[in-house]
Amino acid sequence: MSKNALQPPRGTRDFYPEDFRRREWLFDHFRRIAHRFAFEEVDAPMVEHAELFTRKAGEEIVDQLYHFEIHDRHLALRPEMTPSVARMVIARAGSLRMPARWFTISQNWRYERMTRGRKREHFQWNMDIWGEPEVTAEAELVGSIFALLDALGLARGDVKVRVNSRALLEESLRQGVLADRPEIFEPLCIVIDKIAKVGPDTVIGQLVDPAGGVGLDEASAREVVGMLSARSLDEAAGYVSPDSPALADLRRFFDLLDAYGVRDQVVFDASVVRGLAYYTGIVFEAFDSGATLRSICGGGRYDGLSEKLGGKPLPAVGFGFGDVVIAEFLADKELWPELPRPLDDMVFALGEAERPAAVAIASRLRSQDRRVELVLGSPKLKRAMTDANRAGAARIWLVGPDEVQRGVAKVRDLASGEEHEEPLDA
Amino acid sequence: MSKNALQPPRGTRDFYPEDFRRREWLFDHFRRIAHRFAFEEVDAPMVEHAELFTRKAGEEIVDQLYHFEIHDRHLALRPEMTPSVARMVIARAGSLRMPARWFTISQNWRYERMTRGRKREHFQWNMDIWGEPEVTAEAELVGSIFALLDALGLARGDVKVRVNSRALLEESLRQGVLADRPEIFEPLCIVIDKIAKVGPDTVIGQLVDPAGGVGLDEASAREVVGMLSARSLDEAAGYVSPDSPALADLRRFFDLLDAYGVRDQVVFDASVVRGLAYYTGIVFEAFDSGATLRSICGGGRYDGLSEKLGGKPLPAVGFGFGDVVIAEFLADKELWPELPRPLDDMVFALGEAERPAAVAIASRLRSQDRRVELVLGSPKLKRAMTDANRAGAARIWLVGPDEVQRGVAKVRDLASGEEHEEPLDA
Repeated sequence: MSKNALQPPRGTRDFYPEDFRRREWLFDHFRRIAHRFAFEEVDAPMVEHAELFTRKAGEEIVDQLYHFEIHDRHLALRPEMTPSVARMVIARAGSLRMPARWFTISQNWRYERMTRGRKREHFQWNMDIWGEPEVTAEAELVGSIFALLDALGLARGDVKVRVNSRALLEESLRQGVLADRPEIFEPLCIVIDKIAKVGPDTVIGQLVDPAGGVGLDEASAREVVGMLSARSLDEAAGYVSPDSPALADLRRFFDLLDAYGVRDQVVFDASVVRGLAYYTGIVFEAFDSGATLRSICGGGRYDGLSEKLGGKPLPAVGFGFGDVVIAEFLADKELWPELPRPLDDMVFALGEAERPAAVAIASRLRSQDRRVELVLGSPKLKRAMTDANRAGAARIWLVGPDEVQRGVAKVRDLASGEEHEEPLDA
Repeated sequence: MSKNALQPPRGTRDFYPEDFRRREWLFDHFRRIAHRFAFEEVDAPMVEHAELFTRKAGEEIVDQLYHFEIHDRHLALRPEMTPSVARMVIARAGSLRMPARWFTISQNWRYERMTRGRKREHFQWNMDIWGEPEVTAEAELVGSIFALLDALGLARGDVKVRVNSRALLEESLRQGVLADRPEIFEPLCIVIDKIAKVGPDTVIGQLVDPAGGVGLDEASAREVVGMLSARSLDEAAGYVSPDSPALADLRRFFDLLDAYGVRDQVVFDASVVRGLAYYTGIVFEAFDSGATLRSICGGGRYDGLSEKLGGKPLPAVGFGFGDVVIAEFLADKELWPELPRPLDDMVFALGEAERPAAVAIASRLRSQDRRVELVLGSPKLKRAMTDANRAGAARIWLVGPDEVQRGVAKVRDLASGEEHEEPLDA
């Protein structure tokens, strides 16, 4: 066995008990909020047919696929959950109650270059609404994001959501660069998604480069990048007709956010387009207001995905909320709680002769759903007491020869230090 | 997109909401029992270095590995959890509090021929105790298995546990076929593990066949198979010396099971050896007493694994309890409960003008941790009522123009049919 094989593969994580408790604390919050919003949990295999994920829009996520052939099948670890959920919805589209509100908490895999804060696996909370064309669905999703942030203990203002609409961008470009070539819209979105990271000049270069699949002339590329600087709906309105459906949707969306009490946490930003090819309408991302971390979550409307995968047309909107960035942010804000090992009772036999009595006590307590450590081996009592105290146990039960003879166990309350006796055959 | 890619890969499962609720019901039982026994949950990546799993004892599990090369790394989907947990323990063996009681609920992958009841992925509840050489650990594990079966609603007698000891078998053969060739013990165990499936003649043939890695003469092979017919400790005692440590361990183990109240559910069976190469001591498996299904769970002591993987010597014992066989058994016994969609309140706006009021009500209820479906779209009220009733919701909140004008919502109790009004700004 090489030393290498004793480590988790690069970019992946082990979860020791203390790590796992933190992970579960976070996932429990995901679950509780999802249930409050009447979403139902689903799951799909982590390994799918690679074809489900391979699209043609130059997306990073497809380039980073973990894929392999096995017995003539081309399989892949899922890089994101949405295509799997879409596949499940399509398979039962005729019989599902719509709109379907589904959530998942799933591990996704991306073979990417390792940089700070990037891993090759991460967990993601996905919330999707299928079958609802109205922005009431987007509003419900953004409402759930803030409900989660509130529950985690973050203050209003710690996280902002940036919103745009691909439909608005598409309308803005429809009479221009998309007039003859509507097919460049997806790759164009993929390119401009990186503007915050690579800057406008690089984006203009990529929009002009014919190898990138967009191939604009430089003036058009500059015009597109110019549009991305709009930071209010009124500003963006200048690029579309007054009766723009996309603009009306955005206005209605913001009005609904008012009812959710989160209007002031959400800003319009024309540069937000998200990096996945399949978005078609409103897109959004949440980020820490100090903007020191990668985005906390992101999502949007993807009305075309069902059809693209061979299903019938079906509107859909969703978001993914990863476990890594929020974990860093909660650490920065010192919001992770202490999460001690869950333990109610410790049961300690002073010698091997008393072990059956100790087992009987432990069994009785366990049948009352108490969490009970039956001390194994022959540690010193003092060590067992220290362990019990550290775990926050309520009581330690001591069984020695004298107690067994008298048919009792000594019970020490670890908070008060008081002791009493309990009969062995209660 | 081919039709194929719209199905989960062969041998894998989708979990729709109703499937997921059943899965979670089962996993919640795994978790609750593990916590009662003071086990702590851990997790490791589903993808590991393939080397962690590739051993050389002709095990099926290694032949069935999903493995692949990616960027010069040879990786594999885990076929079982124990090597990953072992790797984690080894990495911190110096600092972990021993004995460490760890559990996992993890998905494992085996590329095997599909037959009835076999899948290529399954979930498994693993419970392991590291650092405890005494059979008190085995007894604790078997105690936890029956605690789980009780909690699931199975009757005593529905499930039996068969127990043997590889150490006992090894002692029985030490003066015989292992005298000159101790290295054949592991492959010998792998061969005889299949006796119930393939019959004694095939096993004798495989023990004799030199290509199988064992290569006994026929008389010895027959003698080995003869030993496997022992069905009591007294019978098995005839093959070992009176002061056999393995026999003493088994006797002590059965005595402890008495204290757990499960002695009469456990039988000695010399033919049980389990199919994994790494077991060294007591091995056990649980099966339905009608013996119509594959084994429900299996485990044993594997004191050599830490060293084999490059760690220091460390005793260990554990079991794996799959989700597939128990699910079939619970169905046979009609023990699966009804698990309706969890929903407390439904909130229905009669028109778009009342939607903000409906959102405000939903938000207020959600902040009280109630599970609330805000009706999207414009379904008929009757359909919403039917949905709410089907989900077992307690109440439906109705907001129409008249109510908004009066600053109230109508609340109907779905059990009693009674209605009352609540102020909108409570």
